[in-house]
Amino acid sequence: MLHEALKSDSNRIIRIIASLSSPLEFRSPLIKEADALEVRLDMITEPINDALHQLRNSFDGPIILTMRSSDEGGAYAGGTGRLWERISPYLSDIDMVDLEIRFQDHAERIKSHNKSVIASCHRNDMPGEQELQNLMDTLHGFGDIIKIAVQPQNQQDILTLLKSTSTCPYPVIMSVTGTVYRYARPLLCLFGSLYTYCYIESATSPGQYSIREMQLLSHLLTPGFVDPWFEGRPVRSGDVSGFLERSQEYRKKLEYQ
Amino acid sequence: MLHEALKSDSNRIIRIIASLSSPLEFRSPLIKEADALEVRLDMITEPINDALHQLRNSFDGPIILTMRSSDEGGAYAGGTGRLWERISPYLSDIDMVDLEIRFQDHAERIKSHNKSVIASCHRNDMPGEQELQNLMDTLHGFGDIIKIAVQPQNQQDILTLLKSTSTCPYPVIMSVTGTVYRYARPLLCLFGSLYTYCYIESATSPGQYSIREMQLLSHLLTPGFVDPWFEGRPVRSGDVSGFLERSQEYRKKLEYQ
Repeated sequence: MLHEALKSDSNRIIRIIASLSSPLEFRSPLIKEADALEVRLDMITEPINDALHQLRNSFDGPIILTMRSSDEGGAYAGGTGRLWERISPYLSDIDMVDLEIRFQDHAERIKSHNKSVIASCHRNDMPGEQELQNLMDTLHGFGDIIKIAVQPQNQQDILTLLKSTSTCPYPVIMSVTGTVYRYARPLLCLFGSLYTYCYIESATSPGQYSIREMQLLSHLLTPGFVDPWFEGRPVRSGDVSGFLERSQEYRKKLEYQ
Repeated sequence: MLHEALKSDSNRIIRIIASLSSPLEFRSPLIKEADALEVRLDMITEPINDALHQLRNSFDGPIILTMRSSDEGGAYAGGTGRLWERISPYLSDIDMVDLEIRFQDHAERIKSHNKSVIASCHRNDMPGEQELQNLMDTLHGFGDIIKIAVQPQNQQDILTLLKSTSTCPYPVIMSVTGTVYRYARPLLCLFGSLYTYCYIESATSPGQYSIREMQLLSHLLTPGFVDPWFEGRPVRSGDVSGFLERSQEYRKKLEYQ
């Protein structure tokens, strides 16, 4: 399948987290085309033990467990106390837990279970450059990876975000909220964001791209990759035999020029 | 056809110049999907009077005449003197002439024929920020639109280019040379570059995108455009009836939210 070829392109720097908000999506064939998965536990009401266990056994990449609070765009209205009882049953089948600043007290306990912490913050405004730096430091204080999603108001804000991402001293996932500047999502990966969040069936955040759209963007924006195969052919179907070989050969040729 | 729908999307800020390097391309059905055309006269050896005249009568957008010098990546090795006899036979069928700094003495004569001048500079290195500003001023001194193509060496250089483009006081087309950071081509349009150059049959500059690829990028990176139609359907074929209506309706909904 073409998308497997895209996924294994080693030059690719836009990497995709599929954000799952229903157990139905757990069984989507698109799952295997993501680089990592996020389970949005706050949006899921049915029991997922078996489904998550099957996902763990079949998916070959990191799985993130997320309880997004209603204050940061999610559906979890409970406090810090109840968080542990909601997430702990699933820890054995996941690799990382997304924790907002308000839930940071759980970070040590999660790490003691040999799980990584994504320390996250989501805002509907745009902090200044220094405020953004301070936020990075705060999140790094309890997380292995930091994740920031803010809302740029103009082009200058996007430049600030690109620059702050490219110089961030910590492993970082940078994103934007809102639909107007949604195009900053793939751009931030070009400047150092480890991943971008996408959806399979329905968006978990306004402005999010679908995994199909982001795969195209990832392919077209991969640095230095000029794909002779891509020209004039259907993107989503067709004969892809030899695709990887041809593209690698072509890249080699470019390097020797 | 889908691409006509894409072309008429008023939100779109990545606009495409198809760079034509052979009379064969003049007759391509892809012509009509470009926003503007560039005739690379330096790469064309056969007479084009009739072909250009037909193009003028059928194409509904600006046509640029370009004699790229061998010093700036083209095939024209003649001097300033011979330039006029090469371009003057075609002036009645075009709208703008691309003039490098070395050919600037022709600018007034071209303007006196009621044609616009694109004042251009192409380099295989990356100027500093101040040097870039000075270059903009120099080009603005003889051109109606300025066009700069330089070669970024790292991410910082790309940030410099994006910033300089977004704050440029003149109408500007900004681009990059080389394949490594080719992804800066569509990005620069998001930050104020009027156009990006693409090819139909064969690239006229290393790292150039095809018009098909750039149409996809243009569509996917259009600000604030979330296209429900796009989801899970083939990009290059299929039933597109009602595409515009649906997407406009959807945008309206977003605005009212």
